[in-house]
Amino acid sequence: MNTPSADAPRSRKKKLLTPDPVAPIPSNPLSAVDGQVRVVIENVSPEINGGRFPIKAVPGDVIAVEADIFLDGQDLVAARLLYRHIDDETWSETAMAQLNNDRWGAAFIVDRQGRYAYTLEAWVDYPASWQHEVYVKVADGQRITSELLAGAQFVESMLKRAGGKVAKKNPDVVAISRMATLFRTGATAADRYDEAVSLAESDQFTFYATRYPDRRHSTRYNHELLIEVDRPRAGFSSWYCLFPRSAAPEPEAGGLPAHGTFRDVEALLPRISGMGFDVLCMSPIHPIGTAHRKGKNNSETCLPGEPGTPYSIGSADGGHDTIHPELGTIEDFKHLIAIAANYGMEVALDLAIQCSPDHPWVKEHPEWFKKRPDGTIQYIENPPEKHLDIYPIDFEADEWQNLWNELKRVLLVWAAWGVRIVRVDTAHAKPFGFWEWIITEVKRDYPDMLFLAEAFTKPKVMQQLAKRGFTQSFTYFVWRNSKADLQHYVTELTQTDMRYYFRPNFWPATHDINPYSLQSGHEPQFMIRYFLAATLSSNYGIYGPSFELMDHTPCPDKEEFLNAEKYEIRYWDWRKTNKLTYLISLVNRIRKENAALQTTNNLTFCQVSDDAIMAYLKVSDTNKLLVVVNTDAYQRRAGMVQVPIWQLGIDPSQPYTMHDLLTEAYYTWQGEQNYIELDPYVLQLHLLRIEV
Amino acid sequence: MNTPSADAPRSRKKKLLTPDPVAPIPSNPLSAVDGQVRVVIENVSPEINGGRFPIKAVPGDVIAVEADIFLDGQDLVAARLLYRHIDDETWSETAMAQLNNDRWGAAFIVDRQGRYAYTLEAWVDYPASWQHEVYVKVADGQRITSELLAGAQFVESMLKRAGGKVAKKNPDVVAISRMATLFRTGATAADRYDEAVSLAESDQFTFYATRYPDRRHSTRYNHELLIEVDRPRAGFSSWYCLFPRSAAPEPEAGGLPAHGTFRDVEALLPRISGMGFDVLCMSPIHPIGTAHRKGKNNSETCLPGEPGTPYSIGSADGGHDTIHPELGTIEDFKHLIAIAANYGMEVALDLAIQCSPDHPWVKEHPEWFKKRPDGTIQYIENPPEKHLDIYPIDFEADEWQNLWNELKRVLLVWAAWGVRIVRVDTAHAKPFGFWEWIITEVKRDYPDMLFLAEAFTKPKVMQQLAKRGFTQSFTYFVWRNSKADLQHYVTELTQTDMRYYFRPNFWPATHDINPYSLQSGHEPQFMIRYFLAATLSSNYGIYGPSFELMDHTPCPDKEEFLNAEKYEIRYWDWRKTNKLTYLISLVNRIRKENAALQTTNNLTFCQVSDDAIMAYLKVSDTNKLLVVVNTDAYQRRAGMVQVPIWQLGIDPSQPYTMHDLLTEAYYTWQGEQNYIELDPYVLQLHLLRIEV
Repeated sequence: MNTPSADAPRSRKKKLLTPDPVAPIPSNPLSAVDGQVRVVIENVSPEINGGRFPIKAVPGDVIAVEADIFLDGQDLVAARLLYRHIDDETWSETAMAQLNNDRWGAAFIVDRQGRYAYTLEAWVDYPASWQHEVYVKVADGQRITSELLAGAQFVESMLKRAGGKVAKKNPDVVAISRMATLFRTGATAADRYDEAVSLAESDQFTFYATRYPDRRHSTRYNHELLIEVDRPRAGFSSWYCLFPRSAAPEPEAGGLPAHGTFRDVEALLPRISGMGFDVLCMSPIHPIGTAHRKGKNNSETCLPGEPGTPYSIGSADGGHDTIHPELGTIEDFKHLIAIAANYGMEVALDLAIQCSPDHPWVKEHPEWFKKRPDGTIQYIENPPEKHLDIYPIDFEADEWQNLWNELKRVLLVWAAWGVRIVRVDTAHAKPFGFWEWIITEVKRDYPDMLFLAEAFTKPKVMQQLAKRGFTQSFTYFVWRNSKADLQHYVTELTQTDMRYYFRPNFWPATHDINPYSLQSGHEPQFMIRYFLAATLSSNYGIYGPSFELMDHTPCPDKEEFLNAEKYEIRYWDWRKTNKLTYLISLVNRIRKENAALQTTNNLTFCQVSDDAIMAYLKVSDTNKLLVVVNTDAYQRRAGMVQVPIWQLGIDPSQPYTMHDLLTEAYYTWQGEQNYIELDPYVLQLHLLRIEV
Repeated sequence: MNTPSADAPRSRKKKLLTPDPVAPIPSNPLSAVDGQVRVVIENVSPEINGGRFPIKAVPGDVIAVEADIFLDGQDLVAARLLYRHIDDETWSETAMAQLNNDRWGAAFIVDRQGRYAYTLEAWVDYPASWQHEVYVKVADGQRITSELLAGAQFVESMLKRAGGKVAKKNPDVVAISRMATLFRTGATAADRYDEAVSLAESDQFTFYATRYPDRRHSTRYNHELLIEVDRPRAGFSSWYCLFPRSAAPEPEAGGLPAHGTFRDVEALLPRISGMGFDVLCMSPIHPIGTAHRKGKNNSETCLPGEPGTPYSIGSADGGHDTIHPELGTIEDFKHLIAIAANYGMEVALDLAIQCSPDHPWVKEHPEWFKKRPDGTIQYIENPPEKHLDIYPIDFEADEWQNLWNELKRVLLVWAAWGVRIVRVDTAHAKPFGFWEWIITEVKRDYPDMLFLAEAFTKPKVMQQLAKRGFTQSFTYFVWRNSKADLQHYVTELTQTDMRYYFRPNFWPATHDINPYSLQSGHEPQFMIRYFLAATLSSNYGIYGPSFELMDHTPCPDKEEFLNAEKYEIRYWDWRKTNKLTYLISLVNRIRKENAALQTTNNLTFCQVSDDAIMAYLKVSDTNKLLVVVNTDAYQRRAGMVQVPIWQLGIDPSQPYTMHDLLTEAYYTWQGEQNYIELDPYVLQLHLLRIEV
């Protein structure tokens, strides 16, 4: 709802996107209304900000739409849900049904990528009202000759809409003509009366009345609502994040880590794809500035040979559209993308819109950077913190238009390299209008492009980024640990309007966040946090080697990593495996094999008597899972879980089988209440497939 | 949201009232956005159907507005609530404050009748962001010379907006110029540094920054929302409903009731106004048809001399714009209005848009009536019921425009007689668009006109009538009897969005509805139902003599009255009084003396340990009441009531006085929990004024 001040001249231009203000008092009203339109359509769901923003879907999704639809008096209503792919000229229609008390619903499937629109239309259903009247009067023993003549009039108007008598070959026309004749004769000829009455009450009449309705005075809902249908990976993805410079297979002689390359990353693909990940997300791969370069652990003094942070982007070698020489060439990067594809993986890049003092833009476009009164450029400050090695871009510069176009060019360069997924760093620090514009622009040329918003900030800001077009979003999951907190938060994500536009992506940790919950390094805790992320959300990711190997040493009293990869090259032992890596590989395989884990909003929490054991159903058409987690990483917990068997269609008198996909154990359960016991020192997780 | 079908040509005309559909993919986007606008305003409350309908108020009401207001990054926001009476050229403004988590609020008072508009504007508050930065850096011990220069730049831009150096006489300009000078010198001259820093941190800086903000890139909310401010009686009224033909003081010789006249009604004014009512509502006063005239108790055969029903409107004597001769003349009616005014009462008429077969319109405008195929006019049917004495108007007639204009003419005739309140009979049986149009039209000429919607139908239909402009609405109160049902329903009316547009008018019974709860004729039950209506809702009414005298004999198995006044003249003993009439007079007086009873949404239910005793707070600025009702008309009930003393600012350690306005008893209470005991055979009601 972001519109310029009314007094600004450019507000005109915005008109297209914003509704006109309601006229204070309608002028010339009789000509402004259609007195014969009686049906009201309102309170449509889903509808985000009055239709200002699209909802999100992937091909195959069922879009269920509801609305309040009603009119004055006793007449009955007919309603249709209209929908079309933006590329289609004409609307498809499906009949809506009344759910209860003037609430109507219908659904359709979006089967193609791109944008869909949907809206509603409703009208007074006179034939249905008439048929109802016939039922009542006949039941009351009244003779309905006059009503039969009225019926004939309805049928004759259907006949016109069916093409009229001329369209003799049309079987509908033949059938409808017969009905008309019978109604008229039945009204006069006593011997045909009963036959005419039963026709009036017949499904045949209903059928043709529904097929050829009179829509002259129908109500059309006054918004066309939008759906953004992205490719399947938007809804189901497993991310693995690493710093390519830390990808070297061996430490250098002398123990100093070697600088990894794209080739080194390629060598890791068997391991990473073998664990079942499909998105390889890399920290920025561009030249790193030298001015005010930071040392280890964010030190303001940088020792010779220290690599600086890849988030201080740009040097004499170039900026966001070039590659850090020590990682390799553009050809090497394209090669990595190609090899990754062979392993069924995509490479995602990290868009950090900020510059080192050495970035070419600083010279070429000084107008994009805020100056301090002393003429120096304003570096990033979060007082008392200073980041002299990073210049923020000034999005409010009067030259914002060439800035936006340049950033679009950068993304098109990446796309030309073959990149189709972008992680956006601190998305909440750039204007919403910019994101809405650039995401729309880039997707026009590259519809496959997906954007993940890295934003850990206030709820409404994170929601707004999703509304403006981000495909997926980081969440508060990293800080939701107790059963109560998790259930509350996941309910908000999957049961409120957020479900329609905000696609969560769950991460137990990131290279910026070393959460207190994991600083113990306690393996069962890592397993719990991983398992929750991978089963609560169909999109999730891990901060790769660090998480796998349970790196956890914090900077004192901070949720940050000591010796963070941001500021130095780390050596990881890529050969190492552990119980956690085994679990990751197993769960990723199970996610691929079980449709119920490939979407997020199909989740229902179950009652459990223990306050640390969490249980949730994940249900798809073909696949029913019950996930059970003991969120207490230190103690065995036991309790009764309540399975909503009525909802699952399970006979309370019959046993059913719970097949644990983690252990291949088979349990025989019966009825609602069943016993659960989970020990973090054995296995604190169940992933049960319900096999009735 | 009632718009014509898109394919209908007239849909064009409707554009003005409906938002444009969202452009599927914005074309030429860079010119369509203002890249420098960063603040978002959304989720505004109150806002009905995206601003399609106004909210309701009376002069003096405080309109509290809330919205989500936020932007990217760390900068602070300034927001204003803009409002104006439609007759005013310019907006008034009030600063909004952050309530929590990006939710902002402000309020203003509507002091004049008519329409108000309100909207919001917000912008980045750079001076405030800068001042916050100064606080932090100074606290961190940093030297802020460069920041002082930035401060000077802010102040110099304020100076321009304040009128610039030319406006020397303006004290603000003088003060702001001083600040600019001090910031600049403080940045250079060490001896002025401290002084400049404390100015940077001062309220003086904040004050001028707030008074002269930079709004160039502000966000203006994209709706102007409307408030319909009616005269005070719209919010506070006590209705007394009668059939004027039953107003005769004495039965005729032979015991047959005499036909009452307007003069007879005048004679009743001392009694009715003496009981404290301010609206006298009369059944239709127009000529009654003779064709198919109904007899007593809705009989299809009418005996000679039977008067028929006043809802079968129209005869050779005229229609809706004429008066039934036996009641008197137009002059008599005007005289009644004048005398009523002397008693502080208004006369409301009953608009029943239906005709007897003898109504002049039937001949003059046959096009307004549905024909049956046999050519006869379609009378009202609710199968198996038939009402051959009533022709409904066909609002879908192709000639709907001259029909609407004629109905408007009727209301303007009534207005010319002096009528300013209209009860609309079965409002739900006529199109919503018609009501929106005619109410707007009539109020343009007669802004004092009030409309009460008589509609007992589905919730969404009743809500829509209120949205379309009805001043007050009948409710389900007549069927809400248990404590649980009453609390649930009143909470919906006063806590959901209904509070903004739906003004309830509570009736214990009507001339159409003789509720099961009153068919016992049990006096304590009548008292309970009356008292609930008069204290739960600031607008209420009684079906006068019948209710006063506790008439209750039903038609067998129906919630209808035997010998209903609709079908015959009743004689009432207007001299009679009873415990109920005493209570009515007392409560109406108390309502006039206690502001807390003159508005409806100021209600809070209190916990009571007994499941039949209901307690609710009614609080205004000057007046605090606790209403307590034993809803069990047959048994003494007792329990503890929880008084939210913290909300009332009552010291838990001190006693406070409860003054019962019904009995003049004084109770001394202390703390939250206090004992209540109510006996229906003594008095089952408390109306306690809290006197601390």
